[in-house]
Amino acid sequence: MPTDAENACFEAGIKFGSLYHQFAGTPVSPESADSLARAMEESIENQPHCEDVRVTVLEDELAAELAASAADYTELTGRFLEVEMDVEYEGTAVRTRMEMEDGYPLMKLVSVDG
Amino acid sequence: MPTDAENACFEAGIKFGSLYHQFAGTPVSPESADSLARAMEESIENQPHCEDVRVTVLEDELAAELAASAADYTELTGRFLEVEMDVEYEGTAVRTRMEMEDGYPLMKLVSVDG
Amino acid sequence: MPTDAENACFEAGIKFGSLYHQFAGTPVSPESADSLARAMEESIENQPHCEDVRVTVLEDELAAELAASAADYTELTGRFLEVEMDVEYEGTAVRTRMEMEDGYPLMKLVSVDG
Amino acid sequence: MPTDAENACFEAGIKFGSLYHQFAGTPVSPESADSLARAMEESIENQPHCEDVRVTVLEDELAAELAASAADYTELTGRFLEVEMDVEYEGTAVRTRMEMEDGYPLMKLVSVDG
Repeated sequence: MPTDAENACFEAGIKFGSLYHQFAGTPVSPESADSLARAMEESIENQPHCEDVRVTVLEDELAAELAASAADYTELTGRFLEVEMDVEYEGTAVRTRMEMEDGYPLMKLVSVDG
Repeated sequence: MPTDAENACFEAGIKFGSLYHQFAGTPVSPESADSLARAMEESIENQPHCEDVRVTVLEDELAAELAASAADYTELTGRFLEVEMDVEYEGTAVRTRMEMEDGYPLMKLVSVDG
Repeated sequence: MPTDAENACFEAGIKFGSLYHQFAGTPVSPESADSLARAMEESIENQPHCEDVRVTVLEDELAAELAASAADYTELTGRFLEVEMDVEYEGTAVRTRMEMEDGYPLMKLVSVDG
Repeated sequence: MPTDAENACFEAGIKFGSLYHQFAGTPVSPESADSLARAMEESIENQPHCEDVRVTVLEDELAAELAASAADYTELTGRFLEVEMDVEYEGTAVRTRMEMEDGYPLMKLVSVDG
């Protein structure tokens, strides 16, 4: 049988995959970045065992991309995002984080406390 | 060659399909309905020729669904939404609307003024 | 530091959340169910540590829904799906499964072997 | 009242926005490109008034991106796609096409025949 800690980590992964693939591709600009970040946080916080979600849209990265392409908006993807999430499952607290590493959005477990 | 009015209607359709299929499936509850509606509006308003988007999440419908299923949240789908959108293309103004009809979300052209 | 088993479970959760929220809302009918199931399997198998994905669209459930609503197609959601997935991370093998339970799609860990 | 041609163009736009925002962000590699293209075609062909959808994943573009980043897969986005679609509405036939122009995926009306 999986342990509570393993189930907690599984639940944390579900939230991360959900957040990313629900919202990747959304049209985003510096002006609309805040409302999108809030919606991402509040929608995923609905999911079971999800205590807190913190989304930052990297406005400098976004502005640099738009300046380079002379566009007004682009599609949301991992290089414009930092995400932290706290999940709790049967007394085990899991913290996870997504950030860019070597040009890729990397989702990882920060801590598991049971 | 397509007319400006035809191009305006094509652009309006693109925005509607984008809005619906980007956000359908998002976890939603009465508490998170507002932030999701704002993100839907502001993200789609980024798209070219899109003047204004107004999204209402039908909180009574949502509350009724949750009460019936004893759940805390559900997935966003057309029966919880009313959407109006104004598109302008080369002087032609198009208004579109999505609402439920016979149990289905129906997207339609309200007016085309060129 | 998280254990290999915890990381394996986190990775398994990411794949499940990705699969569900990438494809929920896709128009589906009995005729298009197979191509959608294959695309779901092959796209998620691209993700790191994902060994195998098996998706079954429940055609009887789908046909019953369409008959009840006199529609030709509907939107993909959990009640039309059974999914099994095998993930391997640093020598730990995780099997996961999604199926309906009490009217809800439940994603769960089946086994963790390290 | 909108004309049949205007409604046909609106319907064509809906299909394009749906296709793009349902599938953008899907993990894709040269090996999984075909199954994804087939699923995109067959799922959107379910929608009303949609006669035919032809999706080509640009495998050379995809291979070049993967070679440049030393990755095994990437996320589907417009620069890996060519799409043609035929819509028919009350006797008006609309052909639409998406292709890259100046680095952006551009959706456009090719012809409207009523």
